[in-house]
Amino acid sequence: MEPMHVHIVYAHPSTGSLNAALRDEAIRTLEARGHSTTLSDLYAMKWKPVADYDDLGPVTDENFMEASGEAHRSGTLSDDIRREQQLLLDADAVILQFPLWWFTMPAIMKGWVDRVLTNGFGYGTVRGWRRYGEGVLAGKHGLAIVTTGAAEAHMSDRGINGSIDDLLFPINHGIFFYTGMDALPPVHIAGAVRLDEDGYRAGVERLRRRLEALEETEPIAYRAQRGGDYDEHRRLKPGLERPGASGFDLHIA
Amino acid sequence: MEPMHVHIVYAHPSTGSLNAALRDEAIRTLEARGHSTTLSDLYAMKWKPVADYDDLGPVTDENFMEASGEAHRSGTLSDDIRREQQLLLDADAVILQFPLWWFTMPAIMKGWVDRVLTNGFGYGTVRGWRRYGEGVLAGKHGLAIVTTGAAEAHMSDRGINGSIDDLLFPINHGIFFYTGMDALPPVHIAGAVRLDEDGYRAGVERLRRRLEALEETEPIAYRAQRGGDYDEHRRLKPGLERPGASGFDLHIA
Repeated sequence: MEPMHVHIVYAHPSTGSLNAALRDEAIRTLEARGHSTTLSDLYAMKWKPVADYDDLGPVTDENFMEASGEAHRSGTLSDDIRREQQLLLDADAVILQFPLWWFTMPAIMKGWVDRVLTNGFGYGTVRGWRRYGEGVLAGKHGLAIVTTGAAEAHMSDRGINGSIDDLLFPINHGIFFYTGMDALPPVHIAGAVRLDEDGYRAGVERLRRRLEALEETEPIAYRAQRGGDYDEHRRLKPGLERPGASGFDLHIA
Repeated sequence: MEPMHVHIVYAHPSTGSLNAALRDEAIRTLEARGHSTTLSDLYAMKWKPVADYDDLGPVTDENFMEASGEAHRSGTLSDDIRREQQLLLDADAVILQFPLWWFTMPAIMKGWVDRVLTNGFGYGTVRGWRRYGEGVLAGKHGLAIVTTGAAEAHMSDRGINGSIDDLLFPINHGIFFYTGMDALPPVHIAGAVRLDEDGYRAGVERLRRRLEALEETEPIAYRAQRGGDYDEHRRLKPGLERPGASGFDLHIA
């Protein structure tokens, strides 16, 4: 096993939370395996969550997206953004850890995504931009560690909230895989509102086992954009879906 | 037709953007029909996007979610949050308008959701909390107006990004319907990166027609939690799905 460097991006407002305890367990487990870690604790850092012109330095384009790309090319993006970009480039694995709020990440972490994965780094507006299996973060692993107040059944395949896998598709496929990373199956700790001591211990145990197997975990088998599965309109070619697959599952080979 | 009051929550960093033009068209169209509007322009308001203890005033509970509920009950939530809650209560329809960034809303709008729809107002941790078809905003209409840089095909049923309807499920079902609102089919303006004059005119025309029919538009037929379709674990009962439906579509009757 090669030691890896893992960058953890973490968001929770309370230092005494379940999430804080899980974060500490994660770091301990990774370092005990010989991996190194860096941590961006977004609340503690008072991370600026709103993408705006203040991020860009002097730009000429008025279109915000184009101006973001201009700032990236000319190296005038603010220091906090460039620091996070470098942390990502230096990492072998990236962990996003957060409580699921309104079925996605808290605003402060969404603001990390919006600002760090900017035009020219995380995505491009040019045709043929390398994405979905290729990109600036290709070859790295991406892992979401997510707590939900809701019980597991409520977030299962037929659960009223939608399945946790579908809810996390925009992150696993739309952020990790989009930028080139392998998306590992997420670690989901459910029932966080009423978690008792046994539930907590079981959750920690599951988290530990997943992190101890980080290097050899099979990623979600998303289809590469350039793998031949999509037509020129970026639609999955007819007949390629697994039997019965529909919705987001179409994009798993 | 009864005149309605429409509260528009809007997020885009650029005052000269496509989104700004569409917002102005929306307001003009609604007011020409005799409706009244209020607007929360989150960037212009410098909306505080991060939910934290500063929002809560004096609280005793250390758990952030519980403390949020405590602040709601005791009336100590910050003024900006309570003002938005009142605007929602006063509205007959709520519009969320935003560019799709990383497959969901920009961070500043996510922070509006996180902070305004707080514990005790938008959701509860008590068993039997009224949600999915019932709730504090019951009887109101919810409408998302969304622009995407990606072309329509890329966001269609077999499109590589996932379908726009699935990507917006966490908003239509998870925010509008969760809090009791009827979720209307979204207005999606695709290909925003390369929109020419004709494309813009067609988009505006579509937006106008949708807003002119706001009162009589059929909402998405999500299943009410208390309608008998879910079992005691909040899972859709076997056999109730429409033929071939899976994933998020299970929750449409």
